[in-house]
Amino acid sequence: MQKGLSVSDSDGSTFAPLVVLELAPNTKEEAVEWLLKRIRDKQQDGGAELLVEKLSPEDQSTEKDNPNVYMVGASMRRLLFGAEDVGLFKEFNDGTMRSFTCANRHNFKEFQGDGDSFLSMAECQYIIKHELDTLRAKGEAHVPGYPKMKLYPGKSVIRRIQSKGILVQIFPLHENEELKRLSFSWYKQFKLSFQPLDDIRHYFGEGLALYFAFLEYFTFALIPMAIIGIPYYLFDWEDYDKYTVFAGFNLVWCTVILELWKRLSASLAYRWGTLSRKKAFEEPRPGFHGILGFNPVTGREEPLYPNFKRQLRIYLVSVPFVLLCLYLSLYVMMIYFEMEGWVLMIHDEEPTFWTGVLLFIPSVIYAVVIEIMNLIYRYAAEYLTNWENHRLESTFQNHLVLKVLVFNFFNCFASLFYIAFVMQDMGLLRQSLATLLITSQILNQIMEAFLPYWLQRRRNKKAHRRVIKTLADKELPLSDQVKLEADMSTYLGTFDDYLELFLLFGYVSLFSCVYPLAAVLVVLNNVTEMYSDALKMCKVFKRPFSEPAADVGVWQLAFEAMSVIAVVTNCALIGMSPQVKSYFPESDTQLIMWVVAGEHLLLAVKFILTFVIPDIPKNIQIKLSRLEFESLEALKKRVSTKNMFPSSIDSGG
Amino acid sequence: MQKGLSVSDSDGSTFAPLVVLELAPNTKEEAVEWLLKRIRDKQQDGGAELLVEKLSPEDQSTEKDNPNVYMVGASMRRLLFGAEDVGLFKEFNDGTMRSFTCANRHNFKEFQGDGDSFLSMAECQYIIKHELDTLRAKGEAHVPGYPKMKLYPGKSVIRRIQSKGILVQIFPLHENEELKRLSFSWYKQFKLSFQPLDDIRHYFGEGLALYFAFLEYFTFALIPMAIIGIPYYLFDWEDYDKYTVFAGFNLVWCTVILELWKRLSASLAYRWGTLSRKKAFEEPRPGFHGILGFNPVTGREEPLYPNFKRQLRIYLVSVPFVLLCLYLSLYVMMIYFEMEGWVLMIHDEEPTFWTGVLLFIPSVIYAVVIEIMNLIYRYAAEYLTNWENHRLESTFQNHLVLKVLVFNFFNCFASLFYIAFVMQDMGLLRQSLATLLITSQILNQIMEAFLPYWLQRRRNKKAHRRVIKTLADKELPLSDQVKLEADMSTYLGTFDDYLELFLLFGYVSLFSCVYPLAAVLVVLNNVTEMYSDALKMCKVFKRPFSEPAADVGVWQLAFEAMSVIAVVTNCALIGMSPQVKSYFPESDTQLIMWVVAGEHLLLAVKFILTFVIPDIPKNIQIKLSRLEFESLEALKKRVSTKNMFPSSIDSGG
Repeated sequence: MQKGLSVSDSDGSTFAPLVVLELAPNTKEEAVEWLLKRIRDKQQDGGAELLVEKLSPEDQSTEKDNPNVYMVGASMRRLLFGAEDVGLFKEFNDGTMRSFTCANRHNFKEFQGDGDSFLSMAECQYIIKHELDTLRAKGEAHVPGYPKMKLYPGKSVIRRIQSKGILVQIFPLHENEELKRLSFSWYKQFKLSFQPLDDIRHYFGEGLALYFAFLEYFTFALIPMAIIGIPYYLFDWEDYDKYTVFAGFNLVWCTVILELWKRLSASLAYRWGTLSRKKAFEEPRPGFHGILGFNPVTGREEPLYPNFKRQLRIYLVSVPFVLLCLYLSLYVMMIYFEMEGWVLMIHDEEPTFWTGVLLFIPSVIYAVVIEIMNLIYRYAAEYLTNWENHRLESTFQNHLVLKVLVFNFFNCFASLFYIAFVMQDMGLLRQSLATLLITSQILNQIMEAFLPYWLQRRRNKKAHRRVIKTLADKELPLSDQVKLEADMSTYLGTFDDYLELFLLFGYVSLFSCVYPLAAVLVVLNNVTEMYSDALKMCKVFKRPFSEPAADVGVWQLAFEAMSVIAVVTNCALIGMSPQVKSYFPESDTQLIMWVVAGEHLLLAVKFILTFVIPDIPKNIQIKLSRLEFESLEALKKRVSTKNMFPSSIDSGG
Repeated sequence: MQKGLSVSDSDGSTFAPLVVLELAPNTKEEAVEWLLKRIRDKQQDGGAELLVEKLSPEDQSTEKDNPNVYMVGASMRRLLFGAEDVGLFKEFNDGTMRSFTCANRHNFKEFQGDGDSFLSMAECQYIIKHELDTLRAKGEAHVPGYPKMKLYPGKSVIRRIQSKGILVQIFPLHENEELKRLSFSWYKQFKLSFQPLDDIRHYFGEGLALYFAFLEYFTFALIPMAIIGIPYYLFDWEDYDKYTVFAGFNLVWCTVILELWKRLSASLAYRWGTLSRKKAFEEPRPGFHGILGFNPVTGREEPLYPNFKRQLRIYLVSVPFVLLCLYLSLYVMMIYFEMEGWVLMIHDEEPTFWTGVLLFIPSVIYAVVIEIMNLIYRYAAEYLTNWENHRLESTFQNHLVLKVLVFNFFNCFASLFYIAFVMQDMGLLRQSLATLLITSQILNQIMEAFLPYWLQRRRNKKAHRRVIKTLADKELPLSDQVKLEADMSTYLGTFDDYLELFLLFGYVSLFSCVYPLAAVLVVLNNVTEMYSDALKMCKVFKRPFSEPAADVGVWQLAFEAMSVIAVVTNCALIGMSPQVKSYFPESDTQLIMWVVAGEHLLLAVKFILTFVIPDIPKNIQIKLSRLEFESLEALKKRVSTKNMFPSSIDSGG
């Protein structure tokens, strides 16, 4: 663990800084003192019982530096109690994963001596974040020094001062040694290997590790498709009628890989101890505001926001806005088709090499415009969802994902559906798909990783220049490290990364039968994505707090919805192929009937498969039910022990 | 509570008989003694700590009477501990439903004094059944007197001797006074009113009460359809092209009512305290057998049956058998169509009144044959599923339901689908539907209620004759009551009742647009069904053990699958109507495309609705999360109390 700074705390133990709290520079003295006292107070007095020290940099010369930066740490004993508090699962002596309890600590596999190395740094930081988040207001009516910032008994103090702007940011510190090791095994060695998922989870937590696991899984799942695609592409280039087999393959593929992913993700989540971990009671999100009232669940006084007002905002503002955006996207699509027709006219009149190149220009422009629209819409959606004032982070996320998914799906795929089913022009579909895919991949890689990386390097150099002069580099002093990290961009979660994979999954599963090279392109993209995402996690962004996650959450649903659409689309594409049409030479009606019947059958099979294939592999199910059985047995023992000491109940007739 | 027989037990408390155990007449003395001792033993010695007495009838003259009949009861104190053991939910002082604990007993609403009337008789019987079921073998290697009947440590003794034939039957006693009151308010007063669901639940338990609640709900849900159907039937008799609106209504109806039922059922289950009750660890079913091995979950030695053998039996025997039955059903259907054609020929040649009547004969015969086939198949399916040797009752039930549903669906609806979509003869469809519906209803009512009732009456009269001679009736002595009830048929659960509703739901939701009177007929049937089911529960069958149930289980899924099929079918029927066809006079292709598009849209909306409509009403959700919040708070308090007494963990750095 980080030993950069060691201060003896009141208990006589050494202080290892784990989390940084940055308060606004102009925060009143009394508010700061009150906050520090509350953080340091003993738990039975309602405090968090954590260690907190002011960051005292060597040279306080530069005036723009914020003086209000605090380092939070905790004694090992406090962290172990915290681990029990957050319900951390750890490996037990018998190889199963169990909820950690201090009483049982010596029966856990990796617990040695005082348990110094039992918790990873990410876990310690997560525990500290949890303890800070659950530091609740007691008797205070408002933040000392700020009479207008009301506090409600039992509500989180940190969330309150965060939404009021006193707390600027809170982030965990990087651990440079471990980060170097991780980045070396992750992306610095150019050999083909699996990602070090366990190490990623160890350093960044389960949520992020699951994203990288999914990225890797998705890439491997695409390889058979890519292998089938290459000869298809090489030998049948102009014969794009023979895609029936490929469409059939897609159909099965997209169902099977999602089912298998569920099982793989359950295995990973079990190994990482998040599978059977209970969700904590969810606090209101920091931005939530409302009128004082009594929460019907907790019975406490707190801000409430009536549901009908939220519904009004959703149905009268958000929904029309989304529809308007969809209309706009449709409008842009129509302009694209006009451009396409115009370019085609020029090319037909007098075909040269340059008009041949020109043919691709509208698609490229359209692809760029789509990316820009997606980006703008993304911000608008976040603003709107924020304005809808959802109480819980989870409902906020669901509404945001829904908004963004609907628009992105429409924006990216509308033109392809139009070309495929209205214009029925498979040549144009192939060309359009290829341009969209390649352009958006290039744009994405630039926007997402290399641009931020370049900006970060420039910033780092500036900062370094100051420091390096005085120091023989190697190990930065803590104060400089904190300053450097505080300036880094904040990683906003896996949302955008999953969204990108979702769209790629759509391109591949919907239309790859007309452009078999799509799978190859996506594989290539995913491989570079892995490297660039790894780079951005290690070098560009602040370390994020680890988030326990048992699965990919709402994205599983989104991918499954896409796979249903893929079944329908591929059936329709099969029905439109001349190959299939030749079986029904005289009657279109019969053809359609058979295709529809087949599609219904496939959908039915898909749903039955979803039910029949267990989501959790057998061996893990056995381990889980063994734990359940043991806890039931323990309960039974308690009941029968109690029966041995009869209470005052008399026997009645 | 029943006060027929009162025997002072060892604790000095009076003995109220609740459950009857009938052992085989030739059971060896030592086995009986061992069993009684085990039932009476204290819990800390591994016994069930229940009271048990031999039934000693007044005149042991008739030789055919079984002497080995035992009555089981328990002290009130034992029952209260048992209630805690099974996790019974009761109403708390604050109006919420909470898991009963003895320590907290005085905070429960209906707990007065010693708690004599706190538990209903059905609950007491359920507790006794549970305690008997969980009476486990300790050191015994086999049942005393029967060296071949092995016992496995930790396995249920009762289930073992039941599957070996020593225990003939175990059933709870009726309570004549309460039964009289219940049957009066339930079916003896001929006024339109809701069923006394709470009383039914009080006497028969939640599982059965939910069935009657569903039956009532389904009937009310059908009333709008019946009201629309009557004028349709009266004024548009020959104009069966105008069914489009009706089909559209069906579409919406079948989705909405199932969603609303989920919410209603959640409300009922909450009120009855079964909604958040945890499922107990499931024991193997009595009929399960296998080779000795170690259970991977419990680690105990017990019979195991390898899964691949079961899979072999399922896929190599059961599946082919079901397919064969389906083929047979198809064959019978073809014979029916031949008969139909033959009769039509006769009628066309020389139409008289009698040939007009003759037209209905094939449908009636077919309906009767369908019922007979369903009945035979039902037994075969049960035999086969038993032979598949499932370890748990729940998987046994799932496999049985699946087998029976597939066949019954096919058997009942194949001919209707054939007439509707292959022959496209709406006149014949209407006639066939009407005959099927009416015939099967009449047959069902006879088979299910009146025949057993009549048999039961005849049996009762015989039995009574013996008794009445000596007694001034009114109150039968206990020994006679037990003998009477032991001879009654055993109620085999709600399976057949739900199955009947499932088929009726199918008739109504799939094809009622061509025969609008179907809803009226089903309403009439349901009303009589309610009375006849009530009659059979109160008069014909032994009292069943109450079964806690939070919902209708696998039937919810079955009804939802049917409603999906209904959407597809109704869309197809709409597409086939001349009314709709006239919009697309020149092209069938376009018509089909529109119908298919509309159908996909409807299915998508249906699935989204299923997600969006919460399964649990808001007010109950709030109550549930309040309980959850309180238990989390209690846990937190326990954790912080523990922190005040630090254990030997030293603070580390």
